[in-house]
Amino acid sequence: MTVPRIGVTPGDPGGIGPEIVVKTLSRPSVLPPAAYILFTDSRIVAAEEKRLGLRLAAREWRPECPREPGVYIVDVPAPGWAAVHGRVSAENGESSFRFFETAVAGARNGVLEAVVTAPISKAAWALAGLPWRGHTDYLDQFCPGAIMSFWSERLKVALFSHHRSLREAVVAVRKDALVDFFVRLHRALEKIPGGPFTLLVAGLNPHAGEDGSLGREEEEEIRPAIDAVRRDGIPIAGPFPPDTVFLRALGKKEAVVVALTHDQGLIAFKLEAFAEGVNATLGLPFVRTSPDHGTAFDIAGKGVADPRSMEEALRLAGVFSASGS
Amino acid sequence: MTVPRIGVTPGDPGGIGPEIVVKTLSRPSVLPPAAYILFTDSRIVAAEEKRLGLRLAAREWRPECPREPGVYIVDVPAPGWAAVHGRVSAENGESSFRFFETAVAGARNGVLEAVVTAPISKAAWALAGLPWRGHTDYLDQFCPGAIMSFWSERLKVALFSHHRSLREAVVAVRKDALVDFFVRLHRALEKIPGGPFTLLVAGLNPHAGEDGSLGREEEEEIRPAIDAVRRDGIPIAGPFPPDTVFLRALGKKEAVVVALTHDQGLIAFKLEAFAEGVNATLGLPFVRTSPDHGTAFDIAGKGVADPRSMEEALRLAGVFSASGS
Repeated sequence: MTVPRIGVTPGDPGGIGPEIVVKTLSRPSVLPPAAYILFTDSRIVAAEEKRLGLRLAAREWRPECPREPGVYIVDVPAPGWAAVHGRVSAENGESSFRFFETAVAGARNGVLEAVVTAPISKAAWALAGLPWRGHTDYLDQFCPGAIMSFWSERLKVALFSHHRSLREAVVAVRKDALVDFFVRLHRALEKIPGGPFTLLVAGLNPHAGEDGSLGREEEEEIRPAIDAVRRDGIPIAGPFPPDTVFLRALGKKEAVVVALTHDQGLIAFKLEAFAEGVNATLGLPFVRTSPDHGTAFDIAGKGVADPRSMEEALRLAGVFSASGS
Repeated sequence: MTVPRIGVTPGDPGGIGPEIVVKTLSRPSVLPPAAYILFTDSRIVAAEEKRLGLRLAAREWRPECPREPGVYIVDVPAPGWAAVHGRVSAENGESSFRFFETAVAGARNGVLEAVVTAPISKAAWALAGLPWRGHTDYLDQFCPGAIMSFWSERLKVALFSHHRSLREAVVAVRKDALVDFFVRLHRALEKIPGGPFTLLVAGLNPHAGEDGSLGREEEEEIRPAIDAVRRDGIPIAGPFPPDTVFLRALGKKEAVVVALTHDQGLIAFKLEAFAEGVNATLGLPFVRTSPDHGTAFDIAGKGVADPRSMEEALRLAGVFSASGS
């Protein structure tokens, strides 16, 4: 068995990213066997190891290295970096972008099977003059239509729409777009071990429209889209009332809820899986996961950050990569 | 101490309402001391007692009865009633309406402090030719603007809007309407023991609009409304991202989340409090609570219905009534 090569980026150096990366990668034995390759300025890791009293024992990595389990490092210089935590800075924005850009280039060139990203600061990217709103926006230029999904032990959710106003999200619920989304999601899930998965589609309106009396989208757009892809053999059901579809899916290994708006999905997911939730971008030519939290500037540098979500993100990247997709 | 008089309606005779009412009222010792007064056809209760092997020992009630703890009955004939479970019928719709109408008349006349309603079938009311969509719609003619709220041990939620399409709910988020709602909610909560309560207001858009880049309602409507009522001394905060405001409120006795849409509130509440949740209508001249579930026709008549939500609804009615409001 050849182990997967998983690129890891520490995110914003002023946030909790470097801390949760060092905490998890200092115990690689609890993770799936893989080559975990850190894309970072090595000074950031060294400072974090010293502060936390942990050791990564990372070896230098090059694409031609033999595939062996362990922790590796690719030194990506972070100009102007200083170990200052807890605030937005253009330098840290620029650094976190360089780490990510280098790892993504490796994945696109086929020398990494997965990229796991600790949180960046969108405000820092903007301060640094970067035109992308964040990780997903950057990836969108290479792979338009990548899908945001959220994974935990008991609940899996995919978002039909995410970073747009609710007003725009309502208007975007159209049959053609839904059919396209269901097909892309199904194809992405087919590559993931643990399937086959069934899509449980949330309605848009209270009580899924209650036969049209509380909104027409279910009858005019959503149900026709579900019927169309079901005829093509995709396992799918709904539309279900948004306030019960998550209960229906809870604990069911095969169930993936399709949320039609950002907050349908994330209200449920964050209540159910706050500390262990993982964000996975589906539909890319490589695996990409990240912890389901932000930079947490308020607790950065204090050594108290909870590494569980990062650990689960690394674990899920290993599982997804093992599919040989 | 005079005990409160709490009217109880069994809801649709074909659903689980009569069962959960008999299960809870057969053990009045676990409930707050009160006169629990059943408005029902006595044959429905007798059939249910026999089926479940339980006894209510209910005495006949008249408004001039002395206030004493116990279980009472007001016989309201249900024409055409037969003990058939599990389906929508016009007769059962008509019966459940008569029970409710009689109890509400008592509360409006001041001979009851509270009404606790087991679930009706809206489809059965429609079949019976009734013009109201349900309990709350019927009450709305006497008390326009009553507020739907949901109570559990760890989470309390009030809905700014409920039974309208999401498209309409988005448009309804206007400063004036929000100010009016916050004031009415605050006044209703002031009458409830356990306060003072603080309103935590959800945003409408992902990340509460992220400074306007994901929607303008937070900056143009919601924040100005919050600022206006805060200046009048109402404890209130927000707008918070919809996907984290519930986590913020969880377990905090004083926190009441204001959800701007039906499903913001109910996705969170049903995940957090499914079996024990209580629906309370605020802003009426009397207390009204109900269990947070429907008729459950699929399990009606099988003796397996979970009475916890009904028990909590009776308990909360007792607590709210004790305030002497």
